[in-house]
Amino acid sequence: MIEAAALRLNGRARRTPLLSSPFLDEVAGRRVFVKAECLQQTGSFKFRGAWAALSALDPATRARGVIAFSSGNHAQGVACAARLHGAPSVIVMPADAPGVKIDATRALGAEVVLYDRESQDRDDLGEALAERRGLTLIRPFDDPQVIAGQGTVGLEIAEQAAKHGIGAADVLICCGGGGLSAGIALALEARAPGLCPRTVEPEGFDDVARSLRSGRIERNDRTTGSICDAILTASPGRITFPVLRRLCGPGIAVSDEDCLRAMALAARWLKVVLEPGGAVALAAALFRADRIEAETVICVASGGNVAPETLRAALKRV
Amino acid sequence: MIEAAALRLNGRARRTPLLSSPFLDEVAGRRVFVKAECLQQTGSFKFRGAWAALSALDPATRARGVIAFSSGNHAQGVACAARLHGAPSVIVMPADAPGVKIDATRALGAEVVLYDRESQDRDDLGEALAERRGLTLIRPFDDPQVIAGQGTVGLEIAEQAAKHGIGAADVLICCGGGGLSAGIALALEARAPGLCPRTVEPEGFDDVARSLRSGRIERNDRTTGSICDAILTASPGRITFPVLRRLCGPGIAVSDEDCLRAMALAARWLKVVLEPGGAVALAAALFRADRIEAETVICVASGGNVAPETLRAALKRV
Repeated sequence: MIEAAALRLNGRARRTPLLSSPFLDEVAGRRVFVKAECLQQTGSFKFRGAWAALSALDPATRARGVIAFSSGNHAQGVACAARLHGAPSVIVMPADAPGVKIDATRALGAEVVLYDRESQDRDDLGEALAERRGLTLIRPFDDPQVIAGQGTVGLEIAEQAAKHGIGAADVLICCGGGGLSAGIALALEARAPGLCPRTVEPEGFDDVARSLRSGRIERNDRTTGSICDAILTASPGRITFPVLRRLCGPGIAVSDEDCLRAMALAARWLKVVLEPGGAVALAAALFRADRIEAETVICVASGGNVAPETLRAALKRV
Repeated sequence: MIEAAALRLNGRARRTPLLSSPFLDEVAGRRVFVKAECLQQTGSFKFRGAWAALSALDPATRARGVIAFSSGNHAQGVACAARLHGAPSVIVMPADAPGVKIDATRALGAEVVLYDRESQDRDDLGEALAERRGLTLIRPFDDPQVIAGQGTVGLEIAEQAAKHGIGAADVLICCGGGGLSAGIALALEARAPGLCPRTVEPEGFDDVARSLRSGRIERNDRTTGSICDAILTASPGRITFPVLRRLCGPGIAVSDEDCLRAMALAARWLKVVLEPGGAVALAAALFRADRIEAETVICVASGGNVAPETLRAALKRV
């Protein structure tokens, strides 16, 4: 399925570069490579999964339109993929999502429906809308086609690692519900078994790390309270977790402050803009050296949709 | 020579992506693509020319070491290329160059010699050093191998444009002494004759635009006074100018303020960090629409080595 998704994504998704800098290697104390998915269409890897899912629908179903729930990056991915398919899209977003993400989603042609995280049930709202208008739900992570689309990042990492002569490494992956992590893990299992996938989350929201330790799905008490808005999910998915459990090494958690420092160093030495949730993997590589044994790490920088004021605050850390 | 340089650069220089965003297209009123050379090794295209020049030296000459004069990006390119060749490098830099560039050059293993722009003659200083120590001078732009190395950007643009189905476009190039512009112009002449190279400079430092108009080499009165430090050269080179004159369309000049706005939009929509001198081409595409007739423009974003405080100031423009 990942290979089939890669064929459908060819010419649509960007093949993002694998970046590095001797200055980051020095901070980390090991070789660090960064898979810059912030340079993907719509500013995050989410376009891949959205395109994979939409392109797998039969044309009549797709023409009726799609609906998605998202704090922002999945929203932009689905909106953009729908527009490129000529299909309508409805995005259900929390009212407290960053304005830059809401605006971008609307500008990409989606109809945005806002809801209150505390008082409204997102799923009820979305289901009612979907039923009334015949829309197909594109789930953010617990969907095989979405996971297959995100897995194309893993295929590219496998090829780029081989080109750099990297046979063994930890692959650190920013993790919310686990769609990107599961997709990459499956791709690496088949194409680069020497590369070990590991999830990275914000401290206090390490449901995946705890689930990997306990062997069953653990939940976060809350899904607000970190600047890493893109990856604050309640728990790993029912489809993603068994994959993560089978293939991933121990999870790592990083502080918001370390994310901001990683964003500053990425801007300075790699010339890329990361959002906090897209910087957790790099933050782990740079500031959690004690949790890593591999001589080489490949960090997935999953997104760059950050409010200018947050980026400005991060740049003060250099 | 450009093709030969491309072979020597293969696996050493990054093949940088061609980025775009519908939001930038909207600002510009036409299709805009950005060749993100800020993602190149050392943060600018200069690594290409430096590698091309060093790799063309005979091994015994190279082993004695190289010397370069540079406000920063050429310095880092030469220092990095020398280190990767195991050769010593001496970089003669103005004492008022941004600290981030001086530090990075030293950290790349170069010996940095500072001089005062107003009171000291850079060329005399460098020549004395070169003679005493048997160093080979790597010129920043008026050198055939350096031009050939920078021309590999043009080969990549030709290939990437073809992949995107772009048969005709203006290619806007950030221009100091003209090495990058001449190299790209020569590559496009051979590989993509429908793409028209055009130089972009800071207002008040438009020696190339004036030279193209008058047909002879014109000079700037001064080489300080714009935030675009990377491209403040006195005049086009004796080798580069005839190439520019034969192949380039009219030059364009942009204000410092428009560079800062372009930097903000590049960070917001493309997730890349540009330095002011690396943003002039994008600034022309976005804010000098009146100077452009082509339906599609390809902007070379030539570098991203910017002080964090300058980037923070730019981000206030969004």
